[in-house]
Amino acid sequence: MLIEQIHEPADLKKLNMRQLKQLAQELRDEIVKVVSNRGGHLASNLGAVELTIALHYVLDLPEDKLVMDVGHQSYAHKLLTGRQELFKRLRQKGGASGFPQMDESEYDAFTAGHASTAISAALGMARTRDIMRGDYCVAALVGDGALTGGMCYEALNDAGQNGTRMIVVLNDNDMSIARNVGAMSRHLTRLRQSKSYIAMKHGVRDRLEKMPRFGEPIYRFLVRCRNRVRSLFISDRFFDALGFKYIGPVDGHDIKQLIRVLRRAKNDDKPLLIHVVTQKGRGYTPAEDHPVDFHGVAPFYIDSGECKGEEGVSSGGVVARQLIEMAESDIRICAITAAMPNGTGMVAFQEAWPERFFDVGIAEEHAVTMAAGMAFQGMKPYVAIYSTFLQRAYDQILMDVCRNALPVTFLIDRAGLVGPDGATHQGVFDLSYLRSIPELIVAAPRDIRDLKKLVRLSQDVNRPMAIRYPRECEDLGPGIQSQRDFDIGEWELISSGSDVMIFAVGRMVQLSMQASIELMGKGISAGVVDARFVAPMDKNLLIEQASRARLVVTAEDNVLSGGFGEGVLDVLAQADIHTPVMTLGVPERFIEHATITQQLEACGLTSLGISRQIEKRLNMLRGNIR
Amino acid sequence: MLIEQIHEPADLKKLNMRQLKQLAQELRDEIVKVVSNRGGHLASNLGAVELTIALHYVLDLPEDKLVMDVGHQSYAHKLLTGRQELFKRLRQKGGASGFPQMDESEYDAFTAGHASTAISAALGMARTRDIMRGDYCVAALVGDGALTGGMCYEALNDAGQNGTRMIVVLNDNDMSIARNVGAMSRHLTRLRQSKSYIAMKHGVRDRLEKMPRFGEPIYRFLVRCRNRVRSLFISDRFFDALGFKYIGPVDGHDIKQLIRVLRRAKNDDKPLLIHVVTQKGRGYTPAEDHPVDFHGVAPFYIDSGECKGEEGVSSGGVVARQLIEMAESDIRICAITAAMPNGTGMVAFQEAWPERFFDVGIAEEHAVTMAAGMAFQGMKPYVAIYSTFLQRAYDQILMDVCRNALPVTFLIDRAGLVGPDGATHQGVFDLSYLRSIPELIVAAPRDIRDLKKLVRLSQDVNRPMAIRYPRECEDLGPGIQSQRDFDIGEWELISSGSDVMIFAVGRMVQLSMQASIELMGKGISAGVVDARFVAPMDKNLLIEQASRARLVVTAEDNVLSGGFGEGVLDVLAQADIHTPVMTLGVPERFIEHATITQQLEACGLTSLGISRQIEKRLNMLRGNIR
Repeated sequence: MLIEQIHEPADLKKLNMRQLKQLAQELRDEIVKVVSNRGGHLASNLGAVELTIALHYVLDLPEDKLVMDVGHQSYAHKLLTGRQELFKRLRQKGGASGFPQMDESEYDAFTAGHASTAISAALGMARTRDIMRGDYCVAALVGDGALTGGMCYEALNDAGQNGTRMIVVLNDNDMSIARNVGAMSRHLTRLRQSKSYIAMKHGVRDRLEKMPRFGEPIYRFLVRCRNRVRSLFISDRFFDALGFKYIGPVDGHDIKQLIRVLRRAKNDDKPLLIHVVTQKGRGYTPAEDHPVDFHGVAPFYIDSGECKGEEGVSSGGVVARQLIEMAESDIRICAITAAMPNGTGMVAFQEAWPERFFDVGIAEEHAVTMAAGMAFQGMKPYVAIYSTFLQRAYDQILMDVCRNALPVTFLIDRAGLVGPDGATHQGVFDLSYLRSIPELIVAAPRDIRDLKKLVRLSQDVNRPMAIRYPRECEDLGPGIQSQRDFDIGEWELISSGSDVMIFAVGRMVQLSMQASIELMGKGISAGVVDARFVAPMDKNLLIEQASRARLVVTAEDNVLSGGFGEGVLDVLAQADIHTPVMTLGVPERFIEHATITQQLEACGLTSLGISRQIEKRLNMLRGNIR
Repeated sequence: MLIEQIHEPADLKKLNMRQLKQLAQELRDEIVKVVSNRGGHLASNLGAVELTIALHYVLDLPEDKLVMDVGHQSYAHKLLTGRQELFKRLRQKGGASGFPQMDESEYDAFTAGHASTAISAALGMARTRDIMRGDYCVAALVGDGALTGGMCYEALNDAGQNGTRMIVVLNDNDMSIARNVGAMSRHLTRLRQSKSYIAMKHGVRDRLEKMPRFGEPIYRFLVRCRNRVRSLFISDRFFDALGFKYIGPVDGHDIKQLIRVLRRAKNDDKPLLIHVVTQKGRGYTPAEDHPVDFHGVAPFYIDSGECKGEEGVSSGGVVARQLIEMAESDIRICAITAAMPNGTGMVAFQEAWPERFFDVGIAEEHAVTMAAGMAFQGMKPYVAIYSTFLQRAYDQILMDVCRNALPVTFLIDRAGLVGPDGATHQGVFDLSYLRSIPELIVAAPRDIRDLKKLVRLSQDVNRPMAIRYPRECEDLGPGIQSQRDFDIGEWELISSGSDVMIFAVGRMVQLSMQASIELMGKGISAGVVDARFVAPMDKNLLIEQASRARLVVTAEDNVLSGGFGEGVLDVLAQADIHTPVMTLGVPERFIEHATITQQLEACGLTSLGISRQIEKRLNMLRGNIR
């Protein structure tokens, strides 16, 4: 196995072309093997194997800088940079992160996770190099999906004007997570198609290579002829306008050609954009056939491509079904997502109501302001975006939606702790950044039934509203589920307690109820309130229950700073209630990849964590009283 | 006066071309007059007068929708839509807002203030029209400065692919607030220059018009000839690639030509971009000569263009001088701004250290991530952006800077209540959204000396840090100013009090000290602590002082939700201190334009407001005790 000889990128440079091809195959096998066991991003990583090999062959990392956008294409890079052991425990506690991470390896020039940042970061590095009179090469590896994000344009616009020496490698697989959208995507397609030789590569070459003995030489001869008669690459006015020299398209699975182009680029002193065409899922048939399904996957059987475990109830699916039903009789209802039709479940809405569905690309800012424009003209838009990505649109939520009190509803998926995707994907800031926005209703259901109720309730709410929920909501049993409908701002007293009252949000309700049972065994009587509206709060219920208890506990899977618990403290302070309060939540640090349960444990937010902390605090209070 | 006959846009349509030109002159005179009295945005508004007239002449507002980006070009529009009286009290309490505002007039299709949102909002409206089977026209008016913002690109990319019928009017004055930057700007310049007839218009026409009798007919004849021999407008591949039909360039001061082009555009059913060339400051010589200085102005003398009042001490100027000094011996220090070199004071740094200064355009997201890239490679970047605009980069601060614990320092100008710029420009959310970010130091100086100290202190801080301050910092006298240096997280006990302890942030320190004097007159002893670090907090000092007081008060010019006060509550709750706490700050609503003092009054944050609330609360507490 060649792969075992690669401990650092320098080892790769000793290989010849035949060996590099073999290495590509071995990398693919390893990626499929590990991802089939651990889950992760598959199709995009398979598509970038040859490109990664070529980049490492030409660049001298870590002196040269390779900044990867998002990092859905970082696996081969990890395997080539001394992390083969770490990679076997991909996305597990203590194992390799699913994304480039500066503190994991000196070869990771930047921590990524959110799209469209690489060109900005790389430009910062290139400018530093120029100020410090350095001479290294800086390259940003960006997917065509990320190119729908406005930040890329901002960075190209800035770098292009100043002529800063840098390379942008555009990995164009014609997809973001789902099929790519936007006029730019169509423009890239035209660029791809206008060049005959990519087609020739894929078609003619395959056929020639099957011819014994003569195939390969004939092919090489043809390529040489073509290269002589015209310049290898053409120019593109779009990137020209942004001050970038366009090079491409280049076959992203032809290592030799990639190396030749990258070498030339490395010696240039202008901003360059290399357009590399790759195939998502390349080399693993199920992923080639279903690149969307194999973008991010749970563990699967390699032979069939089928998922190993059982999927839980997808929150997004439930939300989409509810919306589809509502849209039947209400033409105002429409759905918007930012390149996440599958992840958010909205693909079902798209199928049911294609005219009222909008995938705007990886462009959360635009998605939110467009929704505001629609709401202004009488629509009732639902914007489905993951909690962590909605951070991108904080200003637009505040200024364009809430400043104008427009009835846009945010469907915030992947809220709270998210497990293996790790620190860059935690949805643990939303309650804080949303709660400080005037006019905005912020809700979190405790189970799948309440999620449905909240979506239904939102239909008649003529104000901005946010509903945040984890990827999978439990379907709580009859004893625990909510028995009746509720109004905006209405909490629910689930169980009473004479010692402690726990005010819990979303996922924490069930865990708090378990904690109360554990506490009962220790002679502590703890009640639980479902604080399903973080804004506005149910002040009457809060004050009433808090003034009776010996200890008030708040529980949320959100950072403590600015979160639900602090809001509770303020209500109680204003009402002059002086019951001791303990706020439980995510501490002020970034929570790395692990299972959700491990992450809850690390934050003291499992039922056991909650009950133990309550017990301890009660003991302290008794001590104080004595 | 023609202007007095215009009560709604329909009145404008009755005028002939000569009258329209006269109206333009009258609008200019009125804008100069009002802004010279009230302050406001001058140069950009003067440049857009003819364009606004033409838009109102062709469109049928409010059925058709005109979405103005930012709104630095909305004054003529306000004067044409029944707001002449309101406009006389521009930016004053109860007068016209300086920006388009939905709740001010049905003719304002969207509330603006932050750049680059108009195309998104307009696309939302156009899509609604198509879903609802409407037939009105939607136009977005966007400056070339706003085009540096990525959101514009996201919206063009989305609209272009889908072929949605809409008009983007690009008002190109070759400036954002300062001189425009970016490759796109250069591209527009090339477009302008490649067309001979703009030059002809400006030059030949002026000369021809000075010829008695024959000048105008000759000019008209020349134009007609030209129009016959070639199509009026050429195409542009950049906007073509984004799916927009490009029309232009058009002389933005030629009402007749503008009307002809807009009429043609109105009847088109594809996405169009009309490139209109205007001159910033047009018609008022001081503003034509110094468009940057006359972008946003305080009241001035019309004859000389000189400022009427005295300027206070600009915080940005002090910060820039401190940075310039530090940069002398520290090559790591560089400064970045997003189209605000003047407003942030960084223009002085640019002059001193041009190689280490970067104006990236209206692109806050890119600015922050680029800073992260620079910090990763060893620089010490200072990112100077207004509080309200930094909201745009919340995700980048969180994910790219703080997640990686990179030593980027944010210089946050215009923090707190900002006065006449109003609701879209208040810097009252920053403490909330910054405080919830792990790793980030958040500081607010109480006066100009402490601001300097904080900047100096930041030089050796190897972590992300934010310093927020108002446009003008007081220079507090010897009795009140800080006497010594301090370390990160260190608060200062300014005066002791046996009844009340006020913990105040930034501007609120001085007001709290005045309040404590007022309270002394009523027999109440109130001490003041300067809580200059909102994160991390000086827990020891807080707990020590809070446990001794009968009432703890927090004071901040930031929203209460998630703000400093709630952080104090959490520290006290964790330490089991049960002293009553009153949190003072900006309530959960948007604060409209008025003077800063009026806004402080409205929030109960003047010294009198503070002292009265404290007195009242103490009385309530006494009542409770009885």
